[in-house]
Amino acid sequence: MTTTPASIDLREVGMRDGLQLEAPIPLETKLEILDAIAATGVRRVEVTSFVSPAAVPALADAEQVVAELQRWPDLHFSALVAGRGGARRAVAAGMPHLEYVISASDGHSLANARRTTDEAVDGVADIAALAHDAGGRLEAIIAVAWDCPFDGRTPLRRTVDIARRAVELGADQLCFGDTIGTTVPGRVTDLVAAVRDAVPEVPIGVHFHNTRGSGIACVLAAVQAGVVQIDASVGGLGGCPFAPGASGNIATEEVVYLLEESGIATGIDLSRVLDAAALVERAVGHELPSNLYRAGGPNQPRGRRDASAQNGATTRS
Amino acid sequence: MTTTPASIDLREVGMRDGLQLEAPIPLETKLEILDAIAATGVRRVEVTSFVSPAAVPALADAEQVVAELQRWPDLHFSALVAGRGGARRAVAAGMPHLEYVISASDGHSLANARRTTDEAVDGVADIAALAHDAGGRLEAIIAVAWDCPFDGRTPLRRTVDIARRAVELGADQLCFGDTIGTTVPGRVTDLVAAVRDAVPEVPIGVHFHNTRGSGIACVLAAVQAGVVQIDASVGGLGGCPFAPGASGNIATEEVVYLLEESGIATGIDLSRVLDAAALVERAVGHELPSNLYRAGGPNQPRGRRDASAQNGATTRS
Repeated sequence: MTTTPASIDLREVGMRDGLQLEAPIPLETKLEILDAIAATGVRRVEVTSFVSPAAVPALADAEQVVAELQRWPDLHFSALVAGRGGARRAVAAGMPHLEYVISASDGHSLANARRTTDEAVDGVADIAALAHDAGGRLEAIIAVAWDCPFDGRTPLRRTVDIARRAVELGADQLCFGDTIGTTVPGRVTDLVAAVRDAVPEVPIGVHFHNTRGSGIACVLAAVQAGVVQIDASVGGLGGCPFAPGASGNIATEEVVYLLEESGIATGIDLSRVLDAAALVERAVGHELPSNLYRAGGPNQPRGRRDASAQNGATTRS
Repeated sequence: MTTTPASIDLREVGMRDGLQLEAPIPLETKLEILDAIAATGVRRVEVTSFVSPAAVPALADAEQVVAELQRWPDLHFSALVAGRGGARRAVAAGMPHLEYVISASDGHSLANARRTTDEAVDGVADIAALAHDAGGRLEAIIAVAWDCPFDGRTPLRRTVDIARRAVELGADQLCFGDTIGTTVPGRVTDLVAAVRDAVPEVPIGVHFHNTRGSGIACVLAAVQAGVVQIDASVGGLGGCPFAPGASGNIATEEVVYLLEESGIATGIDLSRVLDAAALVERAVGHELPSNLYRAGGPNQPRGRRDASAQNGATTRS
């Protein structure tokens, strides 16, 4: 375990991982949400993906979104791609900062992208060249880094080996995804330590889902292991597609609350995140899963409590 | 930080802290839920409270519930009381194991129980005597141990001092409540360490709410600090009264998942907890907040994922 960092660098992924399974929303609404996200103080935004519009209609407007990004010159934007075709589209649209997904298990890789993990890793070289030639960076996102819905537990050495090979082939940074929300803090600590040993010079990030309630605890474990790049989604947008009402992405506001209250700076204004969450909730038309958002914010219950407590509910503990 | 324990001793609080703000449910339904809870393998159950039936009508049947507890001879039951009157009722009903609430802040104590913290502490001696004379134990539950909705942050030394005095006056064990769900893991570690220094021989427990998403991370911090007594509520029952849909108690199944996956034994069968949660959800007539329960269980999404992944959603990370 390393020293806990004094600050972390959160990436807002609501525009991509959050929206991808929603019904499409208008470009104008997305830009309003981006305005609200920019106002939170976050510095990095995963803004869309360049994938099949048939598979992900909600992000079919990737080119139009990217064309508007000069409105927010202070934000660092990136876009997810699944392969060379998407990478070419992204670069052509003016988005040189790419995230390329490699599934750490063959089962997930074949189901999601019709290729083996090895074939996905081999793709890094070309996509890195595309990003670099356009003045951008390539982040390799290693999905199912801990567990796979098809193949079960992903061996730690396998995930580390994929990470090392991706870096050798040109990836500038790494992100490890707990795609199905099954990992726990101790396993996060173990993987982060092993990856830092293997590629000590490479920035690494983590992407957790809160499907089983452990996501925020995993964030803390990652931060305590020295990770400073944390993915989160405003309002927890990005529900698990497999069960209505199930929680997916960890909520930006809950990460910010945890870290700021723990003395770790995020640079993010929590009340602005809640404003953005309210906007997102209206845009998608359903309740967001974030506990903190549903509670009305970090302090709201304190104020509201007055009346309730004085009504004589004498058993609160 | 001490060594993480090999096992923890969870207390199911759904019957009291979970149900107390719900509309009253029939005694027969409560007994069915208790059957389901007993089947989970949990060993300790906070079964009701002896407080004003006018203030907490959902638990007005405390005597009738306690009269049925011989059905589950292997379970250890306890009941919450707010003062001497409740303690007398509990003992007369045959419940000698008492939990007595002391609010660590005067603001909360006055609002909830119309007495100062000092006055509440002074009450320990008589209630301990009532419990002990009946062959039971007294647990002092220190509410708003970290933060108060009226007085703000509770000074750590104040909480520790209350704990020490409660033990001096006869409390056999302690429980620290994050009543409004604001604390974070580092503050948990600090308080647990200070309490263990002050009263090293006394068993201590923790009671967290997940109102801002940090509850499960706080459990892990407490366990890593050596606490083995953890309160949790099936399905996360016990929503915050201040905001509809807001999450209150941490969910038993999420605690069990976290700990078991972290190699810490709970003795609890997760699938049985989900069965109990389903029963509770039907009984209270509204959705429970637990992420894991809403996701359909620990493994369900893996199975359900097959179809979805093969439908070509190529961007999951």
